[in-house]
Amino acid sequence: MTGFAVSTAGDLLTRVRERGPLVHCITNDVVVNFTANVLLALGAAPAMVDIPEESGVFAGVAGGLLINLGTPHAERRAAMEAAAPAAVEAGTPWVLDPVAIGALPVRTALAHRLRDLGPSVVRGNASEILALAGTGSGGRGVDATEGVDAATGAAVEIATKTGGVVAVSGAVDLITDGRRTVRIANGDALLTRVTGGGCALGAVMAAFAAVESDHFTATCAAVLVYTVAAEQAASFAGGPGSFAVAFLDALSAVTADDLARAARLS
Amino acid sequence: MTGFAVSTAGDLLTRVRERGPLVHCITNDVVVNFTANVLLALGAAPAMVDIPEESGVFAGVAGGLLINLGTPHAERRAAMEAAAPAAVEAGTPWVLDPVAIGALPVRTALAHRLRDLGPSVVRGNASEILALAGTGSGGRGVDATEGVDAATGAAVEIATKTGGVVAVSGAVDLITDGRRTVRIANGDALLTRVTGGGCALGAVMAAFAAVESDHFTATCAAVLVYTVAAEQAASFAGGPGSFAVAFLDALSAVTADDLARAARLS
Amino acid sequence: MTGFAVSTAGDLLTRVRERGPLVHCITNDVVVNFTANVLLALGAAPAMVDIPEESGVFAGVAGGLLINLGTPHAERRAAMEAAAPAAVEAGTPWVLDPVAIGALPVRTALAHRLRDLGPSVVRGNASEILALAGTGSGGRGVDATEGVDAATGAAVEIATKTGGVVAVSGAVDLITDGRRTVRIANGDALLTRVTGGGCALGAVMAAFAAVESDHFTATCAAVLVYTVAAEQAASFAGGPGSFAVAFLDALSAVTADDLARAARLS
Repeated sequence: MTGFAVSTAGDLLTRVRERGPLVHCITNDVVVNFTANVLLALGAAPAMVDIPEESGVFAGVAGGLLINLGTPHAERRAAMEAAAPAAVEAGTPWVLDPVAIGALPVRTALAHRLRDLGPSVVRGNASEILALAGTGSGGRGVDATEGVDAATGAAVEIATKTGGVVAVSGAVDLITDGRRTVRIANGDALLTRVTGGGCALGAVMAAFAAVESDHFTATCAAVLVYTVAAEQAASFAGGPGSFAVAFLDALSAVTADDLARAARLS
Repeated sequence: MTGFAVSTAGDLLTRVRERGPLVHCITNDVVVNFTANVLLALGAAPAMVDIPEESGVFAGVAGGLLINLGTPHAERRAAMEAAAPAAVEAGTPWVLDPVAIGALPVRTALAHRLRDLGPSVVRGNASEILALAGTGSGGRGVDATEGVDAATGAAVEIATKTGGVVAVSGAVDLITDGRRTVRIANGDALLTRVTGGGCALGAVMAAFAAVESDHFTATCAAVLVYTVAAEQAASFAGGPGSFAVAFLDALSAVTADDLARAARLS
Repeated sequence: MTGFAVSTAGDLLTRVRERGPLVHCITNDVVVNFTANVLLALGAAPAMVDIPEESGVFAGVAGGLLINLGTPHAERRAAMEAAAPAAVEAGTPWVLDPVAIGALPVRTALAHRLRDLGPSVVRGNASEILALAGTGSGGRGVDATEGVDAATGAAVEIATKTGGVVAVSGAVDLITDGRRTVRIANGDALLTRVTGGGCALGAVMAAFAAVESDHFTATCAAVLVYTVAAEQAASFAGGPGSFAVAFLDALSAVTADDLARAARLS
C-alpha cells in the first residue's frame, strides 16, 4: 500500500492540461528557458516574475510557485523572500528546490529560512535534502553524491516539521509527507545529462499542486508524468541533445494509459 | 489594398541575410538564448549588451535595438533607460515589447516611459497593447487573454501618438502605423508552446527595421517571414520540442518563393 | 612538428569522461544553458556559481573555472573578481573568454585586470585577442571581424606575458603557449550559427585543463574534440536548430578513433 493510485496521475494530468495553471517561477539562469518550455509542453502557463517589487503581488494570484536557489543573485533572493510569505498568505502552493546547498553559504542560509516558512513541497537530491535537514554535508554542485535511501530519514523529518511534502530525486524517486511514502522507479539516466532535468521537475510539481490540494498526491503524479515522459523520450534519443527535444514532445503527448502501463511504484 | 506587397518581404529577407544587421537586444533571461538563435538562424548578428555603462554606447552603433520587459531587473532597467534615448538620438530603429504589463507595477511604469520616447515598433499581445494604451487591465503573465481585434483601437492610438508601428500578435497578427493596417493569418499554435515564440519576433522586427526605413513594411515582412517559417516547422514537428528545432532550421532556409506561396494577408 | 599528438586528445577525452571534472562557470545569460548542456554531454559536471559570496569558495574546490565576459552584470563582475584570485591561490586552472571587448568599456577594463592575474587559458576570436593584447580595435559584438592569422602575434604576446595558453577561434583555430603553436582546421560554419558555439568551448577547455596539467595539450585536445564533434553534427544537420541538437549528441559519443581519423592539424 503506497498511498498513491496511478489512475489519479492520469486524472491530474488531464486537469493540468484543461486548466493550464499559471506557475510562477523564481528560478536560476541556467534552466529558466528549459523550465518554461517544460511547463508549456505540459500545458501549464509559466511566468518568471523575479524582482521583489513584483514577485509578492504575483505569488498571490498564481496557481503555484517555484523557488529554486540555483543562481541566487541578490535581487532574486529578495524576490524569493517577498514571494514565499505572499504565497503562504494567499494559500498558493509553493515548491522549494534548495539547489547545491551545503557548503555554499548564501543559498544554504536562505534555504533554511525558506524551509521555516513551510513550503508545500521540497524537491532535491539526497545531498540537498540531508543538508536542508541539517544532517548532511551537501553535494558538489547539483550532483547527488548520496543515494536516495540515505535521505529517507531527513525527508521524513523535513516533511513532519513543515507539514508539507518532500521529494528526493534519484534513480528511484522517493516522495513522503511524513506519513505516506512512495517510491517511483521510472525515469532515465539521460535526465541527468540535460541541465534542468531536475530543476524543471520542481516547476511541474508546482503545476500539479495548483490543481490538487492533496500535495502528496499531486507530487507523486508530477514525478510519474515527468519520469514516464523521460522514458518515452529516451527510447527515441541518440544522446542528450535529442533526448531533451524528445522529452518536450513526450510531455505534450503522454497519456493516462501510458502512465498506467509504465508506472513502477513501490 | 493592404499597404504591403508580399514580394517586398522576400526582398527584405534577402537584404537581412546579405547585410547581417547587428541587433542589440536587452531582453529577458527566459528567452535570451532562443532570441539569439533566432537572429543567427535568420542571418542577423545578435548582441545582448544589457548593462547601463555599455548599452547607450552600443545602441548608437547597432543596426537595431530590442527592449523586452520580461524580467526587468534593476540593472537591466537602467540599461534600457540608457539605450532607448541613445537609439532615438542616433536614429537606430528600436522595438519595445511590453511583456506582461498591466498589473505588475515596475514593468508597467517603465513601459509607459519608454512608449513616450517613441519606439519605432511596439510588439505585444492584445492584453499588453491595451495596457500600454492605458485602456486594458493587462494579461496574466505572457498569455493573451483578449483577441487581437479587441486591441485594434489601442494599436492605432499608440501608433498615432508615437509615430511608429504597432504589431499585435495573436492567431491573426495585426500591424498598423495608424494609417495602413495589415492582418497576417500565417503562423501555428505551436509558436505559443515554445517560450520566446513571441519575444523572439520582436528581435526579428528589429533586424528588418535595421535594413528598411519604412518600418511598417519592415514589420510586416518580419511577421510574414517568422510565421511562414513557423508553418513550415509545424509540418515536420512531433511536438513543441521538435517544433522549436525545426523552426530555427526553417528560418535559415525559408525563401521568397515560400513567402509568396504561403502568405495569407488581408 | 606541432607539439601536440592527436592520440593524446583521445586519452584526455577518456579521462574527462571517467573523472567527470567539476567545472565552475561564471558566464553570460545568453549561453549559460547551452554551456551546461555541452559540459554534461561531454561527461563533465557544470556548476554555475556566480555570486561573489560563493564564487571564491567554489573556485577553490572546482576542477576548473571559466570566466566569460558576455553579460558582465555588476554582481557577476564581483563574482569574477572573487573567483579568479581564489583559483590562482588554489591552483585551479581557469579560462578567460573576453567576449566582445574593445569598444565596450566595462568588460574591456575587466578583461585587462583578469588577464594580469594570469589565466591558464585565454580563448577568443581574433578581434578579442587583439583587443586583449592592447593592439586591436575590438569586434562588433561576438563576431570576429579579423582573421586568426592577424592575431598570431597578439596571441604569442599574451601567452608569453601570462605564462598561459591562448586559443584564437576561427575557421582555423590557433593554439599557442608562446613556444608551441598548433593550428586545427576542423569544425563547421554552423558553429557560428548557434549562440554559445564559441563560448561553450571555453568551458570545455576548463574541463580538459582540470584533468591535464599541461594546459597547452589540454587546450588542443579540447579544440579537437569540440570541432570534430561539430563536423559529425553538421553531417546530420538540416540547419542551425538541428545542428545544435546533433552537436550535443556527438559530444557524448565522439571517440578517440573519430579524432584520429578526422584531425586536420598543422
